[in-house]
Amino acid sequence: MSQLPPPLHRGTFRVSALGGGHGLSATLSALRVIAAEHLTAIVTVADDGGSSGRLRQDMDVLPPGDLRMALAALCDDTDWGRTWAQVMQHRFRSREGVTGSLDDHAMGNLLIVALWELIGDSVEGLRWAGTLLGARGQVLPMSRQPLTMSGTVEPAEGQSASDPAFNNGERLSSQVALAHAGSMGRLRDVQLHPQEAAACAEALTAIELSDWVVLGPGSWYTSVLPHLLLPELRDALYETEARRCIVMNLTPHTDETAGMSPADHLRVLHQYAPDLRIHRIIADPASVPDEERAEFAEAAEALGARVCYHDVAKAGQPEIHDPLRLAIAFSEVFTD
Amino acid sequence: MSQLPPPLHRGTFRVSALGGGHGLSATLSALRVIAAEHLTAIVTVADDGGSSGRLRQDMDVLPPGDLRMALAALCDDTDWGRTWAQVMQHRFRSREGVTGSLDDHAMGNLLIVALWELIGDSVEGLRWAGTLLGARGQVLPMSRQPLTMSGTVEPAEGQSASDPAFNNGERLSSQVALAHAGSMGRLRDVQLHPQEAAACAEALTAIELSDWVVLGPGSWYTSVLPHLLLPELRDALYETEARRCIVMNLTPHTDETAGMSPADHLRVLHQYAPDLRIHRIIADPASVPDEERAEFAEAAEALGARVCYHDVAKAGQPEIHDPLRLAIAFSEVFTD
Repeated sequence: MSQLPPPLHRGTFRVSALGGGHGLSATLSALRVIAAEHLTAIVTVADDGGSSGRLRQDMDVLPPGDLRMALAALCDDTDWGRTWAQVMQHRFRSREGVTGSLDDHAMGNLLIVALWELIGDSVEGLRWAGTLLGARGQVLPMSRQPLTMSGTVEPAEGQSASDPAFNNGERLSSQVALAHAGSMGRLRDVQLHPQEAAACAEALTAIELSDWVVLGPGSWYTSVLPHLLLPELRDALYETEARRCIVMNLTPHTDETAGMSPADHLRVLHQYAPDLRIHRIIADPASVPDEERAEFAEAAEALGARVCYHDVAKAGQPEIHDPLRLAIAFSEVFTD
Repeated sequence: MSQLPPPLHRGTFRVSALGGGHGLSATLSALRVIAAEHLTAIVTVADDGGSSGRLRQDMDVLPPGDLRMALAALCDDTDWGRTWAQVMQHRFRSREGVTGSLDDHAMGNLLIVALWELIGDSVEGLRWAGTLLGARGQVLPMSRQPLTMSGTVEPAEGQSASDPAFNNGERLSSQVALAHAGSMGRLRDVQLHPQEAAACAEALTAIELSDWVVLGPGSWYTSVLPHLLLPELRDALYETEARRCIVMNLTPHTDETAGMSPADHLRVLHQYAPDLRIHRIIADPASVPDEERAEFAEAAEALGARVCYHDVAKAGQPEIHDPLRLAIAFSEVFTD
């Protein structure tokens, strides 16, 4: 008689996932399988580009884009839920030859903004958005206050500081600019503004009450780092009794992080949040070359973490996390 | 021992309600109580003003506004459904001093357009909209083709044709213009364009299979009349074995119908659809002055109809239909 495989641990853990964009979406799609109702997404609110940028400008609201992606990732895995996810992610396009006012707005951004206008509080509005969409877990902004980011680019090895791309060392003062700056050189002195903005109280509570807190994957400076730059949120991460897990990117070299090794990624977090202790780091074996493994293990150890190698990429799409493989990785890491 | 009142007949009738705007919304809110699942809204698609006008211009779609109002009226009477209805009806406003691209767009219009873009067929898109919102019944456009309206204003009694308002007898060629033209004089030769546009096949089937078809209340020329101007739809109304009921407006004198008596309203329908037979006409006693009752009964008889007087206005708001009072009226008319 064949034995059933051991069950995935559904709903056993209280998990907070921090981040933004596609990276957080990948984590949530995986965590939804194993943590379902006890899942909190804590989302960056510093985006100032595209649809989100226009909305925060016009309507005086938080940038909804990363919050929308998180909600879409938490929609139910039914025809109804998948259709809602697709509708949330849909971007409007005018007919050919016309530049319409809706162009490029994501439908879900508009739904979130409508609820904010109706309800008047960003957290309550998101709670209703989740309820209306039948989304699992909860989605919270890291702060109720719209934030911005700034940073400076310094020349990478072999580049001259006189290259006009460095703009005479002038600070970049938008998340959009930071997200593309890494291709020029190395970002330094990255800051969040206002520097002492209050963190979302509900997010602090979620972190305090979690069993596990997950950081990454995602754009390292603009999706993963922001949570460590907000003093109240950083302190909550220092103080929680939750265990902390980092999920590494599958492709270390992005526009933000050109030339940075996986170990460099960990060093950036250590630099900005020196007291942050990490318990586990999930990395796909293909994303850390053999010759860098020792250095990577050392950088992990400096954070107090053990590296767990798991095959988490999609078959045939090595740059995309597979939700079920990542779910298995979480499940094993959370219970080992 | 006290007796329970007789039950309202829930789900007993298959009903098609034709119209647009607030009038159709009132009918649907009432019919929802007694016809629930077997309810079809057949909605005008000639609006070219406001949010709908901008969307049909930019995105090459049907004007979604009247369809949105119908969907909102069919949302469930729960916290969840009522919140969806409110979100659908919400109109965006930019912060003070800013003219934003979303200003005045109704959230529900954008949801419908997103589904049309995703699904590619207006009827299927509306079916999904209803499913996503948990709406009762179904909402159909009268045609899959966006329509326009035209008409001419002739001087009312005591007005001079040389008044510049009459624009030298030039035709008005937008629904928005028609909707305000009645205040100048009397509309004549109202047409729908393209004149031979195909009716929505699903709407024709619904009319064929209905027990009752309801016309009105609403803007007489721009919400009630259009269905009679589309040849296929008019023929379906002539031929169906369904019984037909007209709900009169509470305020006969609107921008479209200044100076028109309740009897005039019926004569307009008779004029544009001479073979249309009507079985019942629901009118609030307060909307037909005693001295006009005989004339009104005569105009009704010319359509083959009997007038049923019912108190259908909201207490304290004589210009608004009360959904429950109207439900009772329908229930009595449908079963007498």
